[in-house]
Amino acid sequence: MKTHTLLMPLDMHLHLRDGVMLETVAPLTAYSFSGAIIMPNLVPPVDTLEAVKSYKQRVMAAVPNDYFEPYMTLFYKNYDKAFLESVVDEITSIKLYPAGITTNSEGGVSSFDIEEMRPTLEAMSELNIPLSVHGETDGFVMDREAEFMSIYELLAKNFPNLKIIMEHITTKAAVDMLDKYDNLYATITVHHLLLTLDDVIGGMMMPHHFCKPIAKRPEDLDALLSIALEAHPKVMFGSDSAPHPQHKKETSGCAAGVFTAPIALQLLCEIFEQYDKLDNLQAFVSDNAQSIYGICPEFKEVTLEKRTFVVPQNYGSVVPMYAGQAIAWAIESVD
Amino acid sequence: MKTHTLLMPLDMHLHLRDGVMLETVAPLTAYSFSGAIIMPNLVPPVDTLEAVKSYKQRVMAAVPNDYFEPYMTLFYKNYDKAFLESVVDEITSIKLYPAGITTNSEGGVSSFDIEEMRPTLEAMSELNIPLSVHGETDGFVMDREAEFMSIYELLAKNFPNLKIIMEHITTKAAVDMLDKYDNLYATITVHHLLLTLDDVIGGMMMPHHFCKPIAKRPEDLDALLSIALEAHPKVMFGSDSAPHPQHKKETSGCAAGVFTAPIALQLLCEIFEQYDKLDNLQAFVSDNAQSIYGICPEFKEVTLEKRTFVVPQNYGSVVPMYAGQAIAWAIESVD
Repeated sequence: MKTHTLLMPLDMHLHLRDGVMLETVAPLTAYSFSGAIIMPNLVPPVDTLEAVKSYKQRVMAAVPNDYFEPYMTLFYKNYDKAFLESVVDEITSIKLYPAGITTNSEGGVSSFDIEEMRPTLEAMSELNIPLSVHGETDGFVMDREAEFMSIYELLAKNFPNLKIIMEHITTKAAVDMLDKYDNLYATITVHHLLLTLDDVIGGMMMPHHFCKPIAKRPEDLDALLSIALEAHPKVMFGSDSAPHPQHKKETSGCAAGVFTAPIALQLLCEIFEQYDKLDNLQAFVSDNAQSIYGICPEFKEVTLEKRTFVVPQNYGSVVPMYAGQAIAWAIESVD
Repeated sequence: MKTHTLLMPLDMHLHLRDGVMLETVAPLTAYSFSGAIIMPNLVPPVDTLEAVKSYKQRVMAAVPNDYFEPYMTLFYKNYDKAFLESVVDEITSIKLYPAGITTNSEGGVSSFDIEEMRPTLEAMSELNIPLSVHGETDGFVMDREAEFMSIYELLAKNFPNLKIIMEHITTKAAVDMLDKYDNLYATITVHHLLLTLDDVIGGMMMPHHFCKPIAKRPEDLDALLSIALEAHPKVMFGSDSAPHPQHKKETSGCAAGVFTAPIALQLLCEIFEQYDKLDNLQAFVSDNAQSIYGICPEFKEVTLEKRTFVVPQNYGSVVPMYAGQAIAWAIESVD
């Protein structure tokens, strides 16, 4: 039977939430990934040193073994340098949300005034703290990411020593931006390598395919696939796996987020094999991230096998993407 | 208190379904409309003389008084002239669905082979039976209607004496097509005068705003408003009110359809008043349709009043658009 082994898989964009949900989902990621960048959009957001430390403790307590590293993040605000120096050893990145753009982002940035942001972003550059950005304007839903490109350009030009991660990119516009500035990088989810808007609202309406940013057009999917499959060195896998309980998804006013953590590696094998690019998957799910972030994850070896795996209907209260459907790869062993 | 009176309102595109659902929704339309074009996409579709007659009887039995005319339709197939002559007195239009494009449309047209369709469409021209069309291709969801314009052109050119109704148009492309051919007409829903894709998936995901065709871009909404508010003489109101039970909407795999029948006139008053065009509403909701279809509806006078009306959470099993929200106009009396 065909197998494929991945070393130290990393999920460079992950939502673990808190409380019971954290206890449900953290072990699923910890099982198959060496580490993950943990998003700070809790209520209230993770914006103090204590909050970072305490959230990390809760994450570690929810994980059943030691072979998983939660790379913690801070919720972007205009912080002073002294504070950033005090927190730099505890965080891997600072995550910027435009205010109100997605789940629990109300305290985010409401206007991109570069001069107001300059002290923070220059301190981050000096301390080598990457800026992870949810890049959407508040415009028309299909245009939000493309409209945000001018803000990426503003940031990239003004802060050439700041590593800027365009998180969960979904458009050809973002793909085209990647090579324009040395200091721009990107994460791509697995669902954005599979879905277009047709899979969200083109047939029946599919709440478990609904996320921010929304899946876009076929030509956008093609552009994302092209850089993921070649494992473009500035691109990393970040699942943006975002659990919500079923009753908040299958309802009027469905929350945004696709839950993929426990099936992400399996789906990535399926996609990369389909395009005969399995050899590039290691770079996409780990090596590129290690280089970009300068991190050395704990050893973990994940072997996947090409055999039918039926995705469970639910993990606790959470319905995963492709629930009940057969996918082509399964996890065989983790060492 | 401000009031506005409408004479013989007509809903030129309505889904009443069958059985218990028919009994739930038919009285709501019959209360405030003089008549409505009743869509034939039952299971099985309405495609025989008996099916038309029997469905009409069931509709009439579900309506509590005599002041409502159900204008019956036939599900488009390639019919011969003899059959069409036998059914012409019982129907007002024939509804064409591309196969599989929306609810219960599996038996629709799978390829637009004009020569195969010619005998039917020429017979319809001679018998003065309008062709009502759900105009969407099976392409990318945001492009489906615009892509269908070439088929409208093909039909309009080849059958210049056939009245072709572009049903529930949602795009500037369809608005621009309207005046290119004398024999093209259109219906517009009330929800497509209110919603863009942002209202479907731009914030939370809203299953009760999910329909086919999907609501489009802001510039499309503007184009629809421009011809509706001026009551362009080739444009009629057709609600496309499409009830589904709540459990088929608030679920994974939500059915397409917005239920507006009991609030349509109130919302239209609100929209037309907002743009200071209330005087044009009579033409949009009745006069244009009477001219285009050559129908003489039963007398009905509906007086609306400008006062807050909180939309009910449900009508039987069906959740309406704007459930629980306050709208600005209410029905005061029906004579």
